[in-house]
Amino acid sequence: MNVLIVYAHHEESSFNAALKDVAIDTFKKLGHTVTVSDLYAEEFQPVGDERDFTHQLKKDSFHYRKEQQHAYKNNTFAADIIREQQRVIKSGVIIFQCPMWCFSVPAIVKGWFDRVLTKDFAYGKDMEYKTGGLNQKTALLVMTTGGPERIYKKNGKHGSMNRILYPITRGMLAYCGFKVLDPFIAYEVENISAQERQQYLTRYAKKLKRLFPAGF
Amino acid sequence: MNVLIVYAHHEESSFNAALKDVAIDTFKKLGHTVTVSDLYAEEFQPVGDERDFTHQLKKDSFHYRKEQQHAYKNNTFAADIIREQQRVIKSGVIIFQCPMWCFSVPAIVKGWFDRVLTKDFAYGKDMEYKTGGLNQKTALLVMTTGGPERIYKKNGKHGSMNRILYPITRGMLAYCGFKVLDPFIAYEVENISAQERQQYLTRYAKKLKRLFPAGF
Repeated sequence: MNVLIVYAHHEESSFNAALKDVAIDTFKKLGHTVTVSDLYAEEFQPVGDERDFTHQLKKDSFHYRKEQQHAYKNNTFAADIIREQQRVIKSGVIIFQCPMWCFSVPAIVKGWFDRVLTKDFAYGKDMEYKTGGLNQKTALLVMTTGGPERIYKKNGKHGSMNRILYPITRGMLAYCGFKVLDPFIAYEVENISAQERQQYLTRYAKKLKRLFPAGF
Repeated sequence: MNVLIVYAHHEESSFNAALKDVAIDTFKKLGHTVTVSDLYAEEFQPVGDERDFTHQLKKDSFHYRKEQQHAYKNNTFAADIIREQQRVIKSGVIIFQCPMWCFSVPAIVKGWFDRVLTKDFAYGKDMEYKTGGLNQKTALLVMTTGGPERIYKKNGKHGSMNRILYPITRGMLAYCGFKVLDPFIAYEVENISAQERQQYLTRYAKKLKRLFPAGF
């Protein structure tokens, strides 16, 4: 099986990097192949605009989604979008690994959604939810938070994590057809002990082994 | 009253531009002052990283939020962040005007949240929700969709619009202290008639006049 990890953290000493490395290691030991889209290192550009296209744009009025459809049909996306879409096509599982910023993914990941999961490729007419363009694939969101778990409970001050992530898990990923697994959230990673961090890494590796055994 | 419109659309012939222009016109007639952060035109850079800071970064490990706190305390943010924070400080009302992309704001707006609404400025210790840093201000989300209103109802295929916008309205804006008004959503703007578009613009102008009368 091929796995794509869409990874967004600046720092190789971060806990996000540790989670990413555990995933790589676990998948490799299971015989799977891993590709990492390392968004900051690759200087992924998250703004969807005319730079996304190599074809002549419609003159009178720039319409991003229509140009995306044109580009998908005519293979005229910019090189980075083609690269990311090819990585998606090749992969059975996509993991999104990033910290929670402002109750969502950082802009660099949001831009990956905007620019890569385009109409007619990932969703479209008669292509949504169960019939979405990526409905043979599985998605897993793996995120870290600054705050403790209790504030992300249904009766916590922020409301439940499921509710916060709904536009991504249901809205974006399920809409494109992905089978969306329960997110793996490591809470309060800056404040917890080294032992607690290790417990998260161990739990994460176990989860991956259970979900994607050798020969999956 | 000063109003800031954080505006994200590429195209001056778009319906987003029309909504933005109606707001400018309405506010001016009411005697208010309007500033527009025209994110695409100003080439706003949405990736939060080391370019956000003019101070010497901590050497061993880059920690974005900690560097943001340091920059806020020492006035060492990059020029675009200082400019946007000043615009926020000056304004009693902030309108976010953009299309819905992937069940959220486009990455360029998400990056504005990430980079501008920083810790200790917009939220922080003992600064959240009612005590948030921006708790004297009002926020209004004005968005357009491709799809019709019925699919954004509680029993529609996407679930309710309130649920989709929750991480922004409650999570991001209310958390920073904003009084968050009911979003103004113009549905299916590409498919509706010129008359229906005009009705949206008229309704929007009326809403603004009612909410922010002269002398507000």
